Amino acid sequence: MNMFSYERVAEFHGHSCPGLAIGYRMTVAGLEALGVERAGDEELVAIVENDACGVDAVQYLAGCTFGKGNLVFHDYGKPVYTFVNRRSGRAVRVLGHRRGFPEDLRGEREASTEWLLTAPPEQVVSCQHVEVEPPALARLHSSGYCAACGERVMETRLREVNGRHLCIPCAEAR
Amino acid sequence: MNMFSYERVAEFHGHSCPGLAIGYRMTVAGLEALGVERAGDEELVAIVENDACGVDAVQYLAGCTFGKGNLVFHDYGKPVYTFVNRRSGRAVRVLGHRRGFPEDLRGEREASTEWLLTAPPEQVVSCQHVEVEPPALARLHSSGYCAACGERVMETRLREVNGRHLCIPCAEAR
Repeated sequence: MNMFSYERVAEFHGHSCPGLAIGYRMTVAGLEALGVERAGDEELVAIVENDACGVDAVQYLAGCTFGKGNLVFHDYGKPVYTFVNRRSGRAVRVLGHRRGFPEDLRGEREASTEWLLTAPPEQVVSCQHVEVEPPALARLHSSGYCAACGERVMETRLREVNGRHLCIPCAEAR
Repeated sequence: MNMFSYERVAEFHGHSCPGLAIGYRMTVAGLEALGVERAGDEELVAIVENDACGVDAVQYLAGCTFGKGNLVFHDYGKPVYTFVNRRSGRAVRVLGHRRGFPEDLRGEREASTEWLLTAPPEQVVSCQHVEVEPPALARLHSSGYCAACGERVMETRLREVNGRHLCIPCAEAR
């Protein structure tokens, strides 16, 4: 099975659903429009305008993952992903939709998923090249220790409380 | 190759690194302590206290993903993941560390990764059963359309501007 198949994406997400299917089509379209492959590091960035199922297709297929810092979330509730290639400076905005979606499939989860996966690209996505400033690279910070619980904490997240440096949970518990 | 092998996690993340290795050990320890398997839906929730590389191990191994809504991020900068099983109500807090980490491996990326992957569990993780209120389930909302750009928007993200309902980017552009 191809690493980039929908089946592998569904395995990662945990199940198949219409939201994942449209995210799959949007991500494939975005990568194709930029002519790029999956990001091993942070060379590709995705700015996603929702946090629904489809974002797992972005993570899996484009390699823009929460843990790598090249997945940026804007809480706009819109079916939009913007992919930015740091190397070329090119960016593409992908809007997901369902033009000509058959009304009788509404509420039919499996049939809707199948339609979204197989419809011609122009019925499910619109791509537009855009100019976007690439978000800053993920930064590494040194660590310190919380004076209350003793646990390790990223330096920038320590809070000073009465002259002691505490982690946020310990600071808030005071 | 086992879906749950470190190699598969590294393939998802895009590369192998010490941060991913400790996230791998922490996630395996958390799932074992709860006696649960990967989440197909939202039955398992992860509350992560940092957004570093290791969270990709949580997503891949535990099935607690950004797109599924069962990955909760608290920006505390701490090496802590708390896994909550909605079915049993049980929760485990996993703290990652490096007890007895050989000083001569400091700065040696590959050797550090190998040490983190193979050290006995007590040297890299501490698990503690805790009581945690499970976060709310992800909610679905209906959609409307932005009166300016015409694009689809989740209802709860429409903003009223001079009597018209706009998406956040259009509202902010005014």
